Amino acid sequence: MTRQIKLGAFLPGGGQHIAAWRHPGSPADGATSFAFHTELARTAERGLFDAYFLADNLSVGLGGREGGNAKIAGFEPVTLFAALAPLTTHLGFIATASTTYEEPYTLARKFASLDHLSNGRAGWNVVTSAGDETARNFNRNKQPDHADRYARAREHVDTVKALWDSWEDDAFIRDKQTGRFYDPAKVHDIDHKGAHFAVKGPLNVPRPVQGHPVVVQAGQSEDGRRLAALSAEVIFTAHQNLASAQEFYRDIKARVIAEGRVPEHVLIMPGVAPFVGRTEAEARAKYDKLTELILPEDGVALLNGLAGGTLDIRGYPLDGPLPKSAETEGMKSRQALIRQIADEHNFTIRELYQWIATARGHYTIVGSATQVADQLEEWFHNEAADGFNILPPWLPGALNDFVDLVVPELQRRGLFRTAYEGRTLRENLGLPRPVNPWTVSRSSLQAAE
Amino acid sequence: MTRQIKLGAFLPGGGQHIAAWRHPGSPADGATSFAFHTELARTAERGLFDAYFLADNLSVGLGGREGGNAKIAGFEPVTLFAALAPLTTHLGFIATASTTYEEPYTLARKFASLDHLSNGRAGWNVVTSAGDETARNFNRNKQPDHADRYARAREHVDTVKALWDSWEDDAFIRDKQTGRFYDPAKVHDIDHKGAHFAVKGPLNVPRPVQGHPVVVQAGQSEDGRRLAALSAEVIFTAHQNLASAQEFYRDIKARVIAEGRVPEHVLIMPGVAPFVGRTEAEARAKYDKLTELILPEDGVALLNGLAGGTLDIRGYPLDGPLPKSAETEGMKSRQALIRQIADEHNFTIRELYQWIATARGHYTIVGSATQVADQLEEWFHNEAADGFNILPPWLPGALNDFVDLVVPELQRRGLFRTAYEGRTLRENLGLPRPVNPWTVSRSSLQAAE
Repeated sequence: MTRQIKLGAFLPGGGQHIAAWRHPGSPADGATSFAFHTELARTAERGLFDAYFLADNLSVGLGGREGGNAKIAGFEPVTLFAALAPLTTHLGFIATASTTYEEPYTLARKFASLDHLSNGRAGWNVVTSAGDETARNFNRNKQPDHADRYARAREHVDTVKALWDSWEDDAFIRDKQTGRFYDPAKVHDIDHKGAHFAVKGPLNVPRPVQGHPVVVQAGQSEDGRRLAALSAEVIFTAHQNLASAQEFYRDIKARVIAEGRVPEHVLIMPGVAPFVGRTEAEARAKYDKLTELILPEDGVALLNGLAGGTLDIRGYPLDGPLPKSAETEGMKSRQALIRQIADEHNFTIRELYQWIATARGHYTIVGSATQVADQLEEWFHNEAADGFNILPPWLPGALNDFVDLVVPELQRRGLFRTAYEGRTLRENLGLPRPVNPWTVSRSSLQAAE
Repeated sequence: MTRQIKLGAFLPGGGQHIAAWRHPGSPADGATSFAFHTELARTAERGLFDAYFLADNLSVGLGGREGGNAKIAGFEPVTLFAALAPLTTHLGFIATASTTYEEPYTLARKFASLDHLSNGRAGWNVVTSAGDETARNFNRNKQPDHADRYARAREHVDTVKALWDSWEDDAFIRDKQTGRFYDPAKVHDIDHKGAHFAVKGPLNVPRPVQGHPVVVQAGQSEDGRRLAALSAEVIFTAHQNLASAQEFYRDIKARVIAEGRVPEHVLIMPGVAPFVGRTEAEARAKYDKLTELILPEDGVALLNGLAGGTLDIRGYPLDGPLPKSAETEGMKSRQALIRQIADEHNFTIRELYQWIATARGHYTIVGSATQVADQLEEWFHNEAADGFNILPPWLPGALNDFVDLVVPELQRRGLFRTAYEGRTLRENLGLPRPVNPWTVSRSSLQAAE
């Protein structure tokens, strides 16, 4: 089959752009409106998106109390997605959850539940939850350092996968006549004892419909890339230009091969924030309209928040340059990206936050449907992307524009599906269902007999 | 308004009776069927139940690997209830969650999310999660002892409530014109630092629709009663006869008054397992039919599991008495209850598990709708109950019987609603919406000026 673009939809109810909630066409209470999230999910499904994706914070986040920010409060992602599952039929749900502040048993369980409830449409975006603000909600003064967080993440992901495999697919017999509900030979303790966790198992949920919910990762640091190459099946990433995306793409695919994995089974999906118009001028007008709605204090808080509270630029002149500051244990990749954008464009603080406010570091495309499709096609055909995570700057308008204008253009070019290929997220992404090692070893034993 | 009976529906998809899944009318895969849980929720709502209630374990539980047990694997309750919320309009959802193995921030957040998603229909059944089997899924060899679990539970509940109150009800301004999204004066750190938790806050979810999801408790030990008197608004409890239920009811109401709380705002709801027929003989036949379906090894595993793994009676003759065993740090109230039933009826092991299998220690009523209503009315009018948690022994049959036969009888007697009184669980239960202490202190200050 011809290789086609995969699409995620990043749809925080309050919108991606920091001023999205002030847009005349956006509901100001979208972040906490279930009805609005339902509308977004249905639109994404109409657009044949692979998945609805939600980031997550375990604190109010983004610079604290000042200013206006629709992302400051919303729904816990798995709870929200569970509620959206029965209202949709094909759309996948990729929820972010933390390896630093959640236990493997609890996490494995809620994602397995979501996968069953949605008939195989769950994905887990693995994050290590940077920031001291979050640490202080979980009995700590400071976050664990970067390397520790990633060591814990590796062990956590392995433990969660082992729990998902603790029941074999055919463990349940449910024979009313004999009273045998399950086959004790097909349920397994995992007996995990590691540096960070001790978990006996088995899980109290049957093996997920997809075997494992799709494992997603987004870190771009060295530790993040290592974790992604080891365990991720979808990688979200942020790049400002083709060359940067290509470097990342080629590096990850090489690491995946070095791990003995199949590179086609690791999909790299850069974030893209599209402003789409019937003409380029119309698209530009949409961009300008949103930019004008940014309050300066919100812009400054955004930069600070994105860098994990490590870029404190309050007090510096808005029309001067970004001050230098030391690298910390915060979100290294984000700090570097912000600095790179400022240097590349020689931006003042104001220009920087205006640029970043659009898509928080992701690639922004302003143009007609043809122009947007051209850009996506270029990245897709030149080792920069297997698909894209679409971050509509405001909602529902920019999502509707993408679905109504860009999706048909991609379909005309044969670059995107015209109907869902399968029932599960994994089937639509073209990812294999993980084999269960317990089942494999039983089959090998039987074959050897 | 006349005092009326409140009703919870305890509906594990696999059924309450240990052999429920073998019933010819029950789906053998009900425990993991979302479609079946949806049917149950809709039936409970048709019956005007206040809430759908789910217990929970953080391990496969109930005696390990032997035998057939539909409760061994299912959905995580909050995830399941979130999915049921958009498919229902009035039914409340009381989910069990652990103060021993979950963090206050995470727990506060998922229940606040469920409360928003369901428009105010969430309840939290507070449990301390007994058993070493569970401890071993969470980095421990043994469970914390009983007193420690309860001390942690008290601090946990207080912390969760403080997080729910960290945003005042009117904190969100969402003024598109000025760009003010919220009022910084109306969001508060909680700055909790206690023996078990340190949580700064605020929560990243707005204050729940109900102020607080309804807080439910079920412990019957001394520690459990103290916790319930301090913080519970609904108390589930297990009693085999009127005198025992009365003792509990009077004791709790006295403790509630001693805490300075209003006794009418703490609803005591004993569990009842009804076998209902058009005649008593028909009801009796339903009881016998289920009892015949119990496999002996399942009955033994059930007794052991109910006592938290502390009543190991494997190897003892089934037609002999229950052996004596030392009281342990397990679920004290359950062990005592099992012993009490055995002594009271002079039961053999087989007779004991047949009795317990029906409702796992709850009160069983076998009779016509009139007889069942008579029993409920007697308890309701004699300081034994403010309502009942109905545990249909098999599903959907015993739930349908209750809704179709007993509910109309209770309505005829004026003992039960004929339509939901309100929109939220709290409104239907007749419980006040908790005031926010931050809002109260602001009002007092303003009044004093």
